[in-house]
This record gives sequence, structure tokens and C-alpha cells, in this order.
Amino acid sequence: MMNATSNRQVRLKARPSGIPQEEHFELVDAPIPQPAEGELVVRNIYLAVEPAMRGWVSSVANYAEPVPVGGVMRGFAVGRVTASRHPDFRVGDYVTGMFGWQDYAAVDARTVQRKITDTGLPLSTALGVLGINGLTAYFGLLEIGEPKAGETVVVSTGAGAVGSCVGQIAKIKGCRSVAIAGGPVKTELCRREFGFDAAIDYRADDLDARLTEACPGGVDVYFDNTAGEISDAVLRHLAVGARVVICGTASVASWSPPPLGPRVERHLIVKRARMQGFLIFDYAARYPEGLSALTPWVRSGAIRYREEILEGIERAPGSIAGLYRGENLGRRLIRIAPDDAQ
Amino acid sequence: MMNATSNRQVRLKARPSGIPQEEHFELVDAPIPQPAEGELVVRNIYLAVEPAMRGWVSSVANYAEPVPVGGVMRGFAVGRVTASRHPDFRVGDYVTGMFGWQDYAAVDARTVQRKITDTGLPLSTALGVLGINGLTAYFGLLEIGEPKAGETVVVSTGAGAVGSCVGQIAKIKGCRSVAIAGGPVKTELCRREFGFDAAIDYRADDLDARLTEACPGGVDVYFDNTAGEISDAVLRHLAVGARVVICGTASVASWSPPPLGPRVERHLIVKRARMQGFLIFDYAARYPEGLSALTPWVRSGAIRYREEILEGIERAPGSIAGLYRGENLGRRLIRIAPDDAQ
Repeated sequence: MMNATSNRQVRLKARPSGIPQEEHFELVDAPIPQPAEGELVVRNIYLAVEPAMRGWVSSVANYAEPVPVGGVMRGFAVGRVTASRHPDFRVGDYVTGMFGWQDYAAVDARTVQRKITDTGLPLSTALGVLGINGLTAYFGLLEIGEPKAGETVVVSTGAGAVGSCVGQIAKIKGCRSVAIAGGPVKTELCRREFGFDAAIDYRADDLDARLTEACPGGVDVYFDNTAGEISDAVLRHLAVGARVVICGTASVASWSPPPLGPRVERHLIVKRARMQGFLIFDYAARYPEGLSALTPWVRSGAIRYREEILEGIERAPGSIAGLYRGENLGRRLIRIAPDDAQ
Repeated sequence: MMNATSNRQVRLKARPSGIPQEEHFELVDAPIPQPAEGELVVRNIYLAVEPAMRGWVSSVANYAEPVPVGGVMRGFAVGRVTASRHPDFRVGDYVTGMFGWQDYAAVDARTVQRKITDTGLPLSTALGVLGINGLTAYFGLLEIGEPKAGETVVVSTGAGAVGSCVGQIAKIKGCRSVAIAGGPVKTELCRREFGFDAAIDYRADDLDARLTEACPGGVDVYFDNTAGEISDAVLRHLAVGARVVICGTASVASWSPPPLGPRVERHLIVKRARMQGFLIFDYAARYPEGLSALTPWVRSGAIRYREEILEGIERAPGSIAGLYRGENLGRRLIRIAPDDAQ
């Protein structure tokens, strides 16, 4: 695995109707690419596994063109430059970007998200707490949720890579933080590791009763990563003027057709609340600002994070479905080459 | 009817579970009240009939305490001061406020919404286009909808008192205006009288096909007075960055329990759209600003309005249900005393 002489790629074999399963992908050997003018070649070291990948392979209306059947699976990666025909990048630079699920990617230098200069933090954080997850939490919570000190912030998938970061930023901003998570291991992690003031197990607890207890003044900000019945319950507890950040819909098995749920309009009027969809890519120009805020918090321990690292690109095809089963504890990454940066 | 010697009141007899019907009210004779210190007595001339009254008599969570069973029905009215123990008001002044469904109201002077000084416009407009409806359209569209010139604004109940005003303000602001209304009489009114660029009959037309035609660039602002299947269709046509103003839910027969509909989260994420509840009472401090903008538009004909005036307080009990059947063309008012101001 560690010394690839070919370029192993995970390609989309068939388009799933709901959550992508192992059988929707195939592992294929391809040649190691050469850089064209203005391009560089990256040897990927870590690949990220996202809940959002479900949307990326779906033909249902989305914010980007779906990955074509037969195409390399889209995905964030961090890796090392092995060849460059662009003056800003040199062999040995570490870079992150949408390099796809493959050993080697030849990419236009403009698509690189950032070059990683020494932060004293593991390379893998570039795909998590100092990458798309931390940035999602940062901009979603602060720009859409607009939390004010003293308010109550509830987050679904509170033990997840985004949710745990949302809770910790909420605490930094002087809010009360309440996690919703699945199972006692995760709720314990929320309380102990991520400093949530309360953590509710949506599988075991009476969600309404526990929300009443945990949010006596109602929910001012709901950072929603799940939709579904969890959100139905939280919406019954909104405070006047509440903001609901719609970030993900992990609990919805398929959007084709959209599932039914209780209509939300009455909550929104009675509470003068808003629900707003959020997509981190809209904030691309502001990533440096987000990273400047997040990096010292991570370094000081004000923001803690968890990673779960799978070994080998063979693990990639089945890795998305596992996220939806809630089997991971922490940001799910796949290591496909040695992490020389550590 | 015109020379009451008693104070006829419409009281809530029983709490309806959905839309209030005639039998939920009773007409009762009470004494004409005397003003206490700081109060004035108003002889109501016009009573307003609102879709929102359904919520005001409901025990389901709302933005105000429900009207108690046995209490006088809450409602906007415009009338003439017949007695005053407050220095700011004199007998003969015309005033509007939440005076209830009754001939005479003794009210604290602080609850008067405004004193009507001569505007050269009919007294009844104080309950409609220069009252709660115009203000709802003005603040809801401009503050929550935030329309920009060139954008497409869709409004449900486009022929209604609020909807027709929303469409005309949208035109004033340089937007394309699209009405959704029930039946050919209303859609024709929308086009001819209220200047909508397009009007869709949700009963007869293929809503999706007509929305595609009428909103080729998608819907930038949706001012929603109905919820339900009309909104389900409009949400499928949102443009990126769309704003949905949740103002009313006329198509929903009962919120107890909330009806089911297709979940909205995916639309909100994919389009980075927001849905926000709106309640005009939150803007009470800014009514003068709204009226200063609306009055010249009404006077110049840039905003046209329709009224449907029922004669006699006996018509009040059955008047709300009629709104929900869509039987009125224009703002529904009840005249219970001669309009001496005209």
C-alpha cells in the first residue's frame, strides 16, 4: 500500500438512490499522471469521508454537478506535491484540496485550497478541525447562527467532527451548549471531551423532556446536521427569534422523493424564527480568516477534536455508509500513504 | 343597527380546533362602557376580519394569549372617540386599534395605534392598505424578503389584502411580481388591477409548469401567506440565495397536530435559502415609517386596493370561515356604524 507504482482510484460504479454503499464504487488502477503547464501532481496521504458525499453522487438537484458514473470519487485530501509546473508550488509542499479518492492527482494549481505551513499540528487536521469541518462549524455557527453570549446553542450530531466544533465555539462565545448524539458513548464524549453543558441521547432519551430540561429558556440557535425527527423535536423548543442553521440532513435516508415531516411554518411564525441553508463553499474566500481564528483555539486546547483513521484506500468504498450508521467516533479519514509530515 | 343604545359584542362561545365557524361565537348585549382615568371610549365603525383570527382563538402555542372563551373577540377596528379621560384624545377623533368585535370599547389610551388625521382617503383604509395589511406587506417584504431590483417576487394569495400590496411594492422596487391566487376572477384581478407580471391559478393550472414559465431565473423572494401544497411547489423553484417570508398559513386547516408535508431542508441547503417567520406586531414602533411610505403610494395609485364591506355586526361570526373559503375579493371589513368621516 505504501509504495504505489500505479495510481489506485476509487471510481463511482453506479449511482445510488440513497446512501452510497460499498458496491457503488470500484477500485481501479490507472497511470500516475504528469502535470500539464500550471498543474501540480499531489501524492494524497489522507482522504476525507464526508456525509455530504451522498449528495455529491446523487443526481437530485444539488449545489454542484454530480460525480459522473465512471469518474473518480470527489473528495478532500491532503498530500505532498511530487511534481509541479506552477511557480507557487514546489516538490515537498503539503497541500489540501478536492483531489479526489486516488493516490495521485494532477490538478490545476488554482484548485489548491491551501498550502500547509508548519502549525505544529498533525497534517490530518487540515482535513478536519483546521479544514472543512472546523470552517463549517465556524462560519455556519457565527455567520448564520449569530449566537450571542448567554444564548443556548443546540447541535445535532454533537459528537461529530462539525458538531463537536460547533459546541466548543459556542462555549468560547459565552453560550450554553447542548449536544444531541446517538448512544451513551457519544453523549459522554460530548460532555467530557467537548465540554457541552448537556448531551442528549436521541436513541434512549425522551427528546422533548430532555430538551425542556436542557434548554429552559428555549433554543436560540439550532445547528442542524440531521433533519428528521430530531429536528422536529428541537423546533418545538425554539425561543423567540431563533436561528436554525441547516447544515446537513444525516438522518434522511433518501431525498428522492423528499420524505414527509410536520410542516414548520407555524413554529417559524410564532417564534419569528428562521431556518437558513448553509454551504461552506460559499465562504471559500474567507477560509484564511476562519483558520486564523481556529488555529490558536486548537493549539490551546479550547477546541478539541477526534479523528478515526482507516488504513488503506480499500476502506474507502464502504466508508460513507458507515458514517450514516454512526459507527465512527470522530472525523473519519483514510490514510493511503505514510504521513511524513509528522 | 345604526343607533345602538346597548353595546353589542361578539364573544367567543367555544374554542374551535381549526377554522372558527359561525357557531363558535355569540352576539351578546352589554352596557355601553364608561372611560376610567387614562381611558377613552371608541364607537367602532369598521371591524376587520383577519385570517390570523384563527390563531388568536386557538389554544395552540401562539404569539399572544388566546382569546378566552366568553371573552369579546379580539380584532382591529377603526372608530370615533365618544368619551375621553386622556389629554391626547378628544371626542370626535378617529382612531384605530385592537378594540375588539363590539360597538363600543373602553380602552387605555396607550393601546391606540394611531389617530387618523385627514389623509383624503377613506376611513376604512386605516384597517387595510394603510393599516395592518399594508404594513404587513411593507415590512414583511422589505425587511424579511429584502427584494433587489430585477429579482422575482412570488406571493401566495396574490389577490388578497396583503398579497396585492406585496406585489405592488415589489413593482415599485423594480422587481418582477408573480401572484398565485385561486380562480380566474382573482388571477385576472391580479394582472389587471394589481399589475402583477404573471398570475397563476393554483386550482386550474399546473403550478410547477407555470412557475417555470413565470420565473425563468427562479424565485428570489417568496412571500408566503398559505403554506401547504402551494409552498411545496414554490420551494422547488427557489433561486440560489432565496428568501421565504413566512407570513401566514391560510391553506392549513388545522395545526393541531401539524400536518405533514415534504421536508424542506434539502431545498434550503442546495439553494442556500432561508425561511423566516414574520409577525407585524414586532414592527409596531416603525408603523409611522411604513405609513409615510405607503400613504403617497396609495394616493398616487401606485398601490391599489380592494375592500369588501359586510353590513352589520351580525355578519361577524361567520366572516372568518368565509375568508378561508376564499369567498372575498379584497380586504374584508364589517361596517357597524355610519362612516361619518367620508
